[in-house]
Amino acid sequence: MSESIEGKLIYSFKNDYSEGAHSNILNAMMNANMDQHDGYGEDSYSKEAVEILKEKINNQNVDIHFVVGGTQANLVVISSILRPYESVIAAESGHISTHETGAIEATGHKINTVETSDGKLTPEKIKKILDEHNSEHMVKPSMVFISNSTELGTVYKKNELEKISLFCRENNLILYLDGARLGTALSSDKNDMTIEDISKLVDVFYIGGTKNGALLGEAIVISNERLKKNFRYNIKQKGALLAKGRILGIQFKELFKENLFFSLGKHANFMSLRLGEKIEKLGYDFLYETESNQIFPIFPNEIIEKLNKKYGFYLWEEVDKDTSAVRLVTSWATKEDMIDKFIEDLKSYSLSK
Amino acid sequence: MSESIEGKLIYSFKNDYSEGAHSNILNAMMNANMDQHDGYGEDSYSKEAVEILKEKINNQNVDIHFVVGGTQANLVVISSILRPYESVIAAESGHISTHETGAIEATGHKINTVETSDGKLTPEKIKKILDEHNSEHMVKPSMVFISNSTELGTVYKKNELEKISLFCRENNLILYLDGARLGTALSSDKNDMTIEDISKLVDVFYIGGTKNGALLGEAIVISNERLKKNFRYNIKQKGALLAKGRILGIQFKELFKENLFFSLGKHANFMSLRLGEKIEKLGYDFLYETESNQIFPIFPNEIIEKLNKKYGFYLWEEVDKDTSAVRLVTSWATKEDMIDKFIEDLKSYSLSK
Amino acid sequence: MSESIEGKLIYSFKNDYSEGAHSNILNAMMNANMDQHDGYGEDSYSKEAVEILKEKINNQNVDIHFVVGGTQANLVVISSILRPYESVIAAESGHISTHETGAIEATGHKINTVETSDGKLTPEKIKKILDEHNSEHMVKPSMVFISNSTELGTVYKKNELEKISLFCRENNLILYLDGARLGTALSSDKNDMTIEDISKLVDVFYIGGTKNGALLGEAIVISNERLKKNFRYNIKQKGALLAKGRILGIQFKELFKENLFFSLGKHANFMSLRLGEKIEKLGYDFLYETESNQIFPIFPNEIIEKLNKKYGFYLWEEVDKDTSAVRLVTSWATKEDMIDKFIEDLKSYSLSK
Amino acid sequence: MSESIEGKLIYSFKNDYSEGAHSNILNAMMNANMDQHDGYGEDSYSKEAVEILKEKINNQNVDIHFVVGGTQANLVVISSILRPYESVIAAESGHISTHETGAIEATGHKINTVETSDGKLTPEKIKKILDEHNSEHMVKPSMVFISNSTELGTVYKKNELEKISLFCRENNLILYLDGARLGTALSSDKNDMTIEDISKLVDVFYIGGTKNGALLGEAIVISNERLKKNFRYNIKQKGALLAKGRILGIQFKELFKENLFFSLGKHANFMSLRLGEKIEKLGYDFLYETESNQIFPIFPNEIIEKLNKKYGFYLWEEVDKDTSAVRLVTSWATKEDMIDKFIEDLKSYSLSK
Repeated sequence: MSESIEGKLIYSFKNDYSEGAHSNILNAMMNANMDQHDGYGEDSYSKEAVEILKEKINNQNVDIHFVVGGTQANLVVISSILRPYESVIAAESGHISTHETGAIEATGHKINTVETSDGKLTPEKIKKILDEHNSEHMVKPSMVFISNSTELGTVYKKNELEKISLFCRENNLILYLDGARLGTALSSDKNDMTIEDISKLVDVFYIGGTKNGALLGEAIVISNERLKKNFRYNIKQKGALLAKGRILGIQFKELFKENLFFSLGKHANFMSLRLGEKIEKLGYDFLYETESNQIFPIFPNEIIEKLNKKYGFYLWEEVDKDTSAVRLVTSWATKEDMIDKFIEDLKSYSLSK
Repeated sequence: MSESIEGKLIYSFKNDYSEGAHSNILNAMMNANMDQHDGYGEDSYSKEAVEILKEKINNQNVDIHFVVGGTQANLVVISSILRPYESVIAAESGHISTHETGAIEATGHKINTVETSDGKLTPEKIKKILDEHNSEHMVKPSMVFISNSTELGTVYKKNELEKISLFCRENNLILYLDGARLGTALSSDKNDMTIEDISKLVDVFYIGGTKNGALLGEAIVISNERLKKNFRYNIKQKGALLAKGRILGIQFKELFKENLFFSLGKHANFMSLRLGEKIEKLGYDFLYETESNQIFPIFPNEIIEKLNKKYGFYLWEEVDKDTSAVRLVTSWATKEDMIDKFIEDLKSYSLSK
Repeated sequence: MSESIEGKLIYSFKNDYSEGAHSNILNAMMNANMDQHDGYGEDSYSKEAVEILKEKINNQNVDIHFVVGGTQANLVVISSILRPYESVIAAESGHISTHETGAIEATGHKINTVETSDGKLTPEKIKKILDEHNSEHMVKPSMVFISNSTELGTVYKKNELEKISLFCRENNLILYLDGARLGTALSSDKNDMTIEDISKLVDVFYIGGTKNGALLGEAIVISNERLKKNFRYNIKQKGALLAKGRILGIQFKELFKENLFFSLGKHANFMSLRLGEKIEKLGYDFLYETESNQIFPIFPNEIIEKLNKKYGFYLWEEVDKDTSAVRLVTSWATKEDMIDKFIEDLKSYSLSK
Repeated sequence: MSESIEGKLIYSFKNDYSEGAHSNILNAMMNANMDQHDGYGEDSYSKEAVEILKEKINNQNVDIHFVVGGTQANLVVISSILRPYESVIAAESGHISTHETGAIEATGHKINTVETSDGKLTPEKIKKILDEHNSEHMVKPSMVFISNSTELGTVYKKNELEKISLFCRENNLILYLDGARLGTALSSDKNDMTIEDISKLVDVFYIGGTKNGALLGEAIVISNERLKKNFRYNIKQKGALLAKGRILGIQFKELFKENLFFSLGKHANFMSLRLGEKIEKLGYDFLYETESNQIFPIFPNEIIEKLNKKYGFYLWEEVDKDTSAVRLVTSWATKEDMIDKFIEDLKSYSLSK
């Protein structure tokens, strides 16, 4: 059942964490429930999940740690790496730049933001920040933060990431990839990378469970040798070391023991693709290209108002005085009939306009 | 099944979070799984759980927020309240003093520690710290941190808490109670307080779910009006605002809609009481009084070594060159036959000694 | 003697802290040298300086504290006021935004920056930031930082500051004015405010000694009642409470016992005005209007190169491929013959071009 | 003149920063006053002072930076070195432990304190802390803080420091020495070390100017190669990079170009030695041994009360109900006739008792 049972909405496209978890995950948690295990990620499920992930990543030289959420992953990783005077470069649309209540600054670090049209960084944009910071009177940018897929739904191509990676290595910058939506990124039609590629091109990244079918949980993957030491201390200090760490282990085991993680991402993308195509056919434009499970169609305000009575979504941006872009997010749990209903309503509002 | 399936142990008395969750909780999560809900604690389950809790606490003038873990609760609460130069007073055995990897200091605040024999603070001990801090060259102690039950298994009596509460109000100190084990504290034979009493005697406290039958989750309860404002900002900034906040709401609803929370605590205590009595009968002493679900018997080292091959527990403290205290923790999930097995083995090792 | 004795430069226009201190100040320090005084600002000189300042400000309801430097003043004030999740709004050109090595972020707070053409904030620009920050997923902007004179040499008019002040009060924002160059601001031809006006329009500001004839030292003036409490704790904690606080007291007494502070500011402005007029007569443009002791003329790059062999100054900004703006700063210590020499050389390079 | 001109005291033994600066220093500042110099420690005086110091230390492999005060030096050094989860070990009497308003915790780090009878650490005391901290649930002690002379006036012997140094190196601990009173330590009769020894036995230390004849200023000396990188960023971020850095350079040049620093220390010690001997002759005991310029005689309370009307000093500690220890500090500026006066009065109060 959806929130409609509360008489409100037919379906919510607000985000990809509106439902619980994939049934495999809940079942596995049920089955393991009365086992006794060591706490804090030292249980056998977590250890098994780490091994499975290393195999999927095809890279034994990584350290993997599970934490509860994305903001937590970002603040633990970033604060663990930077010296006090060092800063992190991110897109203005980056999650850490705007939607984490100053979590990074709260650990003492400035974010140097970069304007982008598509949420993606480039070596040129990074270089500009470096060039502007040239003395001890300014912070020292030492890390680059990117998201894949981005907060605007776009996806990095392999050669784009390679260029950034090369630039970072040449300039002694740590490259960190926020993979809150890595599942849809790697399952996108636009994608030409494997998770192994990512593990080799970045110093550290995280694989998002919360937005791809888990109840909660993100897996931090550290490739860079010098970032590995004592990492669990950082997790514990920031309150991110879950007592019953087994919960995270069980979930990641389920997501990766076969290919559930990727098939859930593929489903979410497919729903957006379908939704997007149908919206386009009705003659509407988009703010950004549809590349993963977030789409940003532009509708007349009066239609938005009507849709909003039946469907949940965020108003994204005013385009002109009569039209605005909205954000529609599909997920592993979105059913095709909800797409169809939305389109049906949109069509009828469009005609009656 | 216990870890014994891995050929290691019959049962672990290491802590009260070795198993998953009470079956009511898992079932409720299953049932709610495909509902759509708003994120970040704005779902109807969380709202319902808040109402249920307010009723149980019999106090409508509290704000309630759910977070994932205890260290997180402590760091969010403490950092949200103190001005930069203010410190918190705690027992040396307090969780924040030693077992949170400097989480409180990482938010900028000193902990003024106090030696105790039983893990409990008193007005006299608090006053001593205040007296020592009398100028701007020292931190300004502005908050008192207590745990109930304490990290040594002891439980506050109502008149003890009343005295501390009065002293704090007279001295303009915020009183914060860490209730990671509030379930066993309030279900203890020694206890003479209700949760309502607590909500009226302290400014803020948290109710521990993780150690009392939940998968994860703690409920922060704020009584003091001036601590309420904008509290969700603090939660979000520290990475403690769970995307699928529904998970926390569902669990606290289950724990409190009837009296599951208290009956689980009672069970845990009863197991410890039973275990303690039988150990005592075998002629062993204890480091601290048995008041809740943690007991600290003193055994000869050679017996400890033997027990440790079959049972999980922490070595707590050397008593003399031949004997040590160990910590045995029982929980909502401990079955009586495990107590019996432990006692049987202890008896046999004691005889053969 | 200038650095020219090292064979390098005739004169440096790099900044307004290239020389030592006005002779009155050094003499007063000499005379007081062997007096014994209490440390940490509790000496009679500091107390006297506070009384003199209150009289000059014509406002007895202020608290005044002396610290050593501007970055220190900024970080002490800002971190003492904001709750952990609160941010400060500043111009992109603001000192805290770029030239303090992340000092504000190091105390845990984000700076929301605003683009400006002249270094000045307006209610409209502030409102835009407020409008964008509307939930606990973002920081809460709670303070406004302005500089007078600004980092671009411009000066606030009374009605501009009144509008900002009114907007801040209506929106519950603390208004803080960085007066590192308040001496030249209040002595500018463009200025129509008194220091009393400032103390009534802002919640807290500081009066810069370092850039206006003192060896070192800034006076923080707090008008807002609720910011006053325990302020010395913040100063001490950040390492800003000088042991021999008398040094700061003596200097501010000298600067304000008559009108030395203002006459030094006037002199610095006059030198810039004169320098600017002569540059303008030679046909050159300016990046910003000349309003105080910093001017930003635009020269051909080849002339800049020549000037730079004889005079110290900062290259400010590329204007086009052939020309750039430079920053020339005059001070209380700049002598007119140095202006003349500079103009002479500029004229000769301009002719030979 | 002393504070007596205000009708209060004949002389203050409260601390060693009651007067201004040695006349050589003031004269040098006068002479250099109208020179133009680059800011922020890049002036020729600071550079010269660094070279002079390196020679005195007889160690070219050190980096030297000047900051304004001791708390500042401590917080800049400690926060620049430790990872977020790392702590610093210090004596309970250590300056950072109690008298810096939580400055170290404000940068995010716990201080592990050690009880001592004489203010000095030993490998055994340090080891005990290491042994207690053995998992990621606790901070990781990574630095040792010692003061020489200590806050109790005692002085490290070379073999004591060698043992600590060796232990630190074997245990991968950074050793930091707070030399706020290094001048009196190295000039003490008990001392058998050179400043060169210190630079080789510790990783980083600071040489205190404020308490040994300078107006203000401490010189941080870094021996450990890996602590040197980008250190100026840390100084700037914490507000400790003085704009007119020349002031610090001039002073350290004067203190070290010959042996002023050491002769001032010797004088201060000599005054304490003399004062102590005469007090002892009058039959009084001491709380700690007299080893440098702080002494802690034990007097009857009624005599303390009388003395306090004529002389400034701190009441240190109650010894029993009738007697207390006081702290008397002599300095570079203490004249012998003040010692004589004090003794004369003490003698007369003692007789009349």
